[in-house]
Amino acid sequence: MEFQLEEAIEILGRTPETLRVLLKDLPEAWVTADEGGDSWSPYDVVGHLIHGEETDWVPRARIILEHGEARAFTPFDRFAQFEKSRGRPIAELLDEFAARRRESLAALAELSLRPEQMSLRGTHPELGSVTLGELLATWVAHDLSHVAQVLRVMCRQYGEAVGPWKQYLPLVNGDRG
Amino acid sequence: MEFQLEEAIEILGRTPETLRVLLKDLPEAWVTADEGGDSWSPYDVVGHLIHGEETDWVPRARIILEHGEARAFTPFDRFAQFEKSRGRPIAELLDEFAARRRESLAALAELSLRPEQMSLRGTHPELGSVTLGELLATWVAHDLSHVAQVLRVMCRQYGEAVGPWKQYLPLVNGDRG
Repeated sequence: MEFQLEEAIEILGRTPETLRVLLKDLPEAWVTADEGGDSWSPYDVVGHLIHGEETDWVPRARIILEHGEARAFTPFDRFAQFEKSRGRPIAELLDEFAARRRESLAALAELSLRPEQMSLRGTHPELGSVTLGELLATWVAHDLSHVAQVLRVMCRQYGEAVGPWKQYLPLVNGDRG
Repeated sequence: MEFQLEEAIEILGRTPETLRVLLKDLPEAWVTADEGGDSWSPYDVVGHLIHGEETDWVPRARIILEHGEARAFTPFDRFAQFEKSRGRPIAELLDEFAARRRESLAALAELSLRPEQMSLRGTHPELGSVTLGELLATWVAHDLSHVAQVLRVMCRQYGEAVGPWKQYLPLVNGDRG
């Protein structure tokens, strides 16, 4: 499917509410459970998404618009949320994500992007040359991937509880999804 | 994590609203897009979940309570939704799923299940002996898996649009999740 800005905004605007429905007032054990080792819990994912609003998507769009390929994006710290969200209740993080996302979409609207600007190019510190359209499509795919991750992490908590049904459930069954 | 009925009910009760937030009034192309071949669209998944409410979870719990292992469950038709939902708008399916789920949870509450009943046994037509607790845990994991599937199918629609970011997005990148 081709990237369309209005459709992307439609999907991006729903993510905070999706996470709120999934996680708000859920028993704490479900919010903080992870997949073992260094893997992330639903709580960590929400912190990561907040950090993305602050440093990744709109800031990078601005760099493309203002500097083109001349200035590489600031690398994104994928682990910043562990420091910043420590000890805060999930309800507070969900509210903060919703507020940050509203601000991001308002800032995006103010840029009044035209379809032909989607091919403007910027420089990713690892991936090299990328377009504004690719950046914004990635914002959408990143949201969808991380909400899917929340569901997978939750699903896995019943990996044993489902007994022999495990073989019918690829997500429970070790697929990293 | 051990199965707990109250937690299961808490999660099961949220699924209709999660799907409504994700899919209601979304552009049609996103609701009906699939992963190619015989794969399912978000629309198909909602139809499948409705069918499960009608024939799978609570009906099977009743079979365990009434017949124990003596009577095997009726096999579940994983493709029934293609006939039953044909041509109906997604908003109608989302409402129907919400109504069916409310009925299922009301029926479950009426059974007044006690923790010790979770080890009661029934017979699955393919898996053999299973417990009531495993059936109910599978109901939860099945919900979470299929919502994750909806997100994966949507995410994949931007498989090309994300350009070089594809390598950072396992869901876009061919992982069946």
